[in-house]
Amino acid sequence: MTNSRSSPSQDRRAPSSDSSISLFVIPGIPEIRKGQNLGRLIALAARRAGIVLEAGDILVVAQKIISKAEGRIVALSTVKPSPRALALAKKLSGDPRLMEVILRESKRVVRSERVLIVETHHGFVCANAGVDHSNVAGRDCVTLLPKSPDRSARQLAAALRKQTGKRVAVIISDTFGRPWRLGLINVAIGAAGVPAMIDLRGKRDSHRKLLRATVVAVADELAAAGGLLMGKAAGTPVVVIRGYRCRFVQDPASRIIRPAEEDLFR
Amino acid sequence: MTNSRSSPSQDRRAPSSDSSISLFVIPGIPEIRKGQNLGRLIALAARRAGIVLEAGDILVVAQKIISKAEGRIVALSTVKPSPRALALAKKLSGDPRLMEVILRESKRVVRSERVLIVETHHGFVCANAGVDHSNVAGRDCVTLLPKSPDRSARQLAAALRKQTGKRVAVIISDTFGRPWRLGLINVAIGAAGVPAMIDLRGKRDSHRKLLRATVVAVADELAAAGGLLMGKAAGTPVVVIRGYRCRFVQDPASRIIRPAEEDLFR
Repeated sequence: MTNSRSSPSQDRRAPSSDSSISLFVIPGIPEIRKGQNLGRLIALAARRAGIVLEAGDILVVAQKIISKAEGRIVALSTVKPSPRALALAKKLSGDPRLMEVILRESKRVVRSERVLIVETHHGFVCANAGVDHSNVAGRDCVTLLPKSPDRSARQLAAALRKQTGKRVAVIISDTFGRPWRLGLINVAIGAAGVPAMIDLRGKRDSHRKLLRATVVAVADELAAAGGLLMGKAAGTPVVVIRGYRCRFVQDPASRIIRPAEEDLFR
Repeated sequence: MTNSRSSPSQDRRAPSSDSSISLFVIPGIPEIRKGQNLGRLIALAARRAGIVLEAGDILVVAQKIISKAEGRIVALSTVKPSPRALALAKKLSGDPRLMEVILRESKRVVRSERVLIVETHHGFVCANAGVDHSNVAGRDCVTLLPKSPDRSARQLAAALRKQTGKRVAVIISDTFGRPWRLGLINVAIGAAGVPAMIDLRGKRDSHRKLLRATVVAVADELAAAGGLLMGKAAGTPVVVIRGYRCRFVQDPASRIIRPAEEDLFR
């Protein structure tokens, strides 16, 4: 039991603790309301499930519950669409009030054919500015992305440290589409306590050749891994990743956003 | 010990076997040469490490070792660059022979500013057609992507079944860049035995609202998860994902490729 990191039984054991990772959900997260202390609720749900968070754990948290706690919800009935929103709604056969909310969250419209792809004020390029109907109470209500997901991640990590005494990392994830490939995958829109990217340039490969263009977006890979246990409909917005070895650093996920002037596809 | 799936010890246990996943590497994969039986080598390495593969395990396998086993290696000294390759090399300050190899692997050049982004014959849109210097012996040699990564995945899954008696799934991964976001992440270029995408449309969310645009590229999320243990320089090209519940289906990763006519960013 001393070397117990990830060895459920002899025949199933991973070869060493440095080369194995486990992922599990924290069940029983309640419906989140504005102003609630998410760190306390997650810590409580973990305790109830018999889960003891450990230093180095990485919590992948669905954007939706962060937005709810931060009150980033808009009732469409309160929204008066601008002429631009009305025009977009006509073009895309959408709800003009929803278009208005999306435009308010956007710096720029990138595409408006079939779907509305924008650059948000954060710099994310995504469909509908991350404004979303799903998993929010009220037929009429939509959630917006957190104002500053990196700050939200730092605050949640701090709250969890206060609740549990453990230095855990937080990634806030959302599902984004992408050009060239179908389907959505979870990406990191906020991060605290993990490297957003790891730069392997200057290291050598197994044949002693210098690696050239190898910067890995680790926070996105962690978010995608978390997504495996985060079925949209399943009500499991918090996934723990345990055993991934990395430095505890404050490296904002916003660093992953490609600067517009370097981007060949805007 | 009977319910041992992922419970290393009491205090670290995941809440239930349906909501936990473990990832670990198969260590000791040797340098791969053309014509070798990769299924046999992987099964052997697993046995030596005391790893017993189980039905339902998903093996994420780095494209590089598939390409080597299939002899998809080109020595640049044997390549005569075409005028088009010479022009590209001049524009991008690259090696004209490398440009020639990339062009041969490509259906179309998508961008050639700073980097060369092409559409491969498979339909992947990626830098340099996946042609790569790293982790291959010989200063002069580059690897190409497998001719048909989905077929390679099916063949490897079949070979592993023969070797181990277990029905395991295979994902062949490569690191791709993407517009709008920096850094590379692992994506699935080939798959056998897992759903490439899961369509949640028609399901209802936690508030009984119909989910609309939610198709998740599960194979890509699995590849990204595998990537967490697949450091480019680390010589760990095979990662096992255990505990991810899905149907065993033949669903090619090529299905994730967005049809050109639906793509707003080509």
